[in-house]
Amino acid sequence: MNIAAITDQLISAGHLLHRRGWVPASGGNFSARLASDRLLMTSSGCHKGELSAADFMLVDMQGNAAEDTPRRASAESLLHCAIYRMDASAAAVLHTHSVPATVLSRALEAGVILRDYELLKILDGISTHEISVEIPIFDNDQNMTRLSTVIEEAMRQGRGRHGFLIRGHGLYAWGSSVAEARYRVEALEFLFDCEWQSQLGEARQQ
Amino acid sequence: MNIAAITDQLISAGHLLHRRGWVPASGGNFSARLASDRLLMTSSGCHKGELSAADFMLVDMQGNAAEDTPRRASAESLLHCAIYRMDASAAAVLHTHSVPATVLSRALEAGVILRDYELLKILDGISTHEISVEIPIFDNDQNMTRLSTVIEEAMRQGRGRHGFLIRGHGLYAWGSSVAEARYRVEALEFLFDCEWQSQLGEARQQ
Amino acid sequence: MNIAAITDQLISAGHLLHRRGWVPASGGNFSARLASDRLLMTSSGCHKGELSAADFMLVDMQGNAAEDTPRRASAESLLHCAIYRMDASAAAVLHTHSVPATVLSRALEAGVILRDYELLKILDGISTHEISVEIPIFDNDQNMTRLSTVIEEAMRQGRGRHGFLIRGHGLYAWGSSVAEARYRVEALEFLFDCEWQSQLGEARQQ
Amino acid sequence: MNIAAITDQLISAGHLLHRRGWVPASGGNFSARLASDRLLMTSSGCHKGELSAADFMLVDMQGNAAEDTPRRASAESLLHCAIYRMDASAAAVLHTHSVPATVLSRALEAGVILRDYELLKILDGISTHEISVEIPIFDNDQNMTRLSTVIEEAMRQGRGRHGFLIRGHGLYAWGSSVAEARYRVEALEFLFDCEWQSQLGEARQQ
Repeated sequence: MNIAAITDQLISAGHLLHRRGWVPASGGNFSARLASDRLLMTSSGCHKGELSAADFMLVDMQGNAAEDTPRRASAESLLHCAIYRMDASAAAVLHTHSVPATVLSRALEAGVILRDYELLKILDGISTHEISVEIPIFDNDQNMTRLSTVIEEAMRQGRGRHGFLIRGHGLYAWGSSVAEARYRVEALEFLFDCEWQSQLGEARQQ
Repeated sequence: MNIAAITDQLISAGHLLHRRGWVPASGGNFSARLASDRLLMTSSGCHKGELSAADFMLVDMQGNAAEDTPRRASAESLLHCAIYRMDASAAAVLHTHSVPATVLSRALEAGVILRDYELLKILDGISTHEISVEIPIFDNDQNMTRLSTVIEEAMRQGRGRHGFLIRGHGLYAWGSSVAEARYRVEALEFLFDCEWQSQLGEARQQ
Repeated sequence: MNIAAITDQLISAGHLLHRRGWVPASGGNFSARLASDRLLMTSSGCHKGELSAADFMLVDMQGNAAEDTPRRASAESLLHCAIYRMDASAAAVLHTHSVPATVLSRALEAGVILRDYELLKILDGISTHEISVEIPIFDNDQNMTRLSTVIEEAMRQGRGRHGFLIRGHGLYAWGSSVAEARYRVEALEFLFDCEWQSQLGEARQQ
Repeated sequence: MNIAAITDQLISAGHLLHRRGWVPASGGNFSARLASDRLLMTSSGCHKGELSAADFMLVDMQGNAAEDTPRRASAESLLHCAIYRMDASAAAVLHTHSVPATVLSRALEAGVILRDYELLKILDGISTHEISVEIPIFDNDQNMTRLSTVIEEAMRQGRGRHGFLIRGHGLYAWGSSVAEARYRVEALEFLFDCEWQSQLGEARQQ
């Protein structure tokens, strides 16, 4: 697939995700892997619900601009790079900020445990609801080198295979195509919303 | 009505239901009965908010593809078949995944009891709010043959006439046309939302 | 203003109100007063988010069809007639079904008391937030003659001047134009949402 | 940038903010500074989700119409003027009414304290989540001269630099462009929603 087609897919993803309220203001960032050392990525500060081709830039695997451009690479490029490094099948990474993901990531400690949901089957390699999946929560850190090291280390140990949360910040999810990454975002955000509602509901039963 | 017109109605239903957040990712599936042994049905894995005619396929009453196609019939086709078998008036079946239906199906045991809601009048044969309707909740099961047997048995006993929930999974509703099935989904999802909010509110009164 | 223009305004109102989730399925109904004994009104059973001119019909002040038409007047036409009779300034009536209005009308007894909200200034004759407005809640009744009598009697006593709720059913609001009626629906539904959230929040402070 | 372009940006902002449910009915008002003593501003009573160029008017720094027009300047123009006076970098001011902002402003006393949220970085001069930002809450007052004096005094003391809430009323936020003001509204409304949800969630942990 050529760059223009992938750009269009990321633009459409942005419109859909903004409509759902999951990429407020200039929050979030999206990328796709074009080659082993080249990412197409939303530049810093653009609005994900109003993306145009001009908002994208080429980034290398160190998170730096890989073209002569006035646009600035997002500091979080390093997290995208970490994911692509740790998961060879990842072709697109979507980072979103939703209210349920944000409040859940602040209310829980180490991770969100998802079990007995049919939608878990959207995740890679899962074919039944009778399973328990952990979406780890990493503490937020403005030092992206340090944060990406934490994430790589966790992924090396097998955590965060299906996505991860950064506390008070949002979700990172990915897939072997923009469409698959988007399906995972939709499924995980849905499940976070269910988990948050369930937490509110438990007040009643105590 | 010809296949193209019914396909268009199912596509429109998908757009509307996705906009409401009730068919996240590739969740849900839709069908219409074309003849006593032929269903038009969304194939496995497609996104219900972005349906096109290419996402549909013909399925027989055993839930198998009834045409030469690269598309794969959804495993849940069997549940659609069970509904069409048990309700001769059913011409369209819509299966959705909403947050309120999901959390409610996990918080309650046997069923959701709906009473004193004006919107109950959208359901078949109901002309007053002064009635109590049970939407049964069946345990989720990846064995569709077994699950469809459970559902058929329950329907034979008169349960689930107005739709049913599968725990942690979602709603099945239907009608004598795509429009009627959609009205029932809209009404039931609305009522599940009311019931969930009421459960949250009861915390206050205890 | 001619009938076509008023019809267009009611159609637009339907689209907006459905997008907000306030007229699920075929719930709700809308009308406008064309002359002292003629209403333009949505016919029974149509979907308010998908209105076209064909969904409207002329109704007299007894709630009966005032033209030769295959469409059926809504049973609730009588409530619209009661409002037009009791408020000479009413030119349009909008009836909606929202989740907050529905759960609030079931959780409270006689009425919703709204005070200290800036948006109260959208209501007729109110120019400050430092006021207490009651939106009465009437018990639902399938006998529309009886229900309209209850409402007329309450309005005669000065209750329900700014709109009223029917328990487990929804809101009636109106204005001197379709636009004004719509503003009042938007304001009241917003305030019901605030009241419901506040009720949920009070659990915390007890 | 010319007036037509700024008008278009404010119209787009209105559509987006109404879609999110943050400017119900004729609530809210928007402005942009054209010159040291000239504001472009939405006139009183117009619907922010349906703005057209005809809804805008020129206002001077005393909040009065600065052109011969049948439109009426909003009483709240004075608050816009106060903001432009106190913050020389402000080029656009957006005032919104959301449910979370409204209920939060009624549930809390002096202000909303926001800390450890990544989205705080959308605010002016903030580059880390490890910070505590107060969005002050001022009591609502129909006397706009008095209220604007209260706000100016608070801003002179360094409060409300990132926006402020009026109790039971809504948010004022601004920026050096319409886009920046809008980003801040999106970020703050998102954070108010998070804070409200967290308050509901705390009921559970007590």
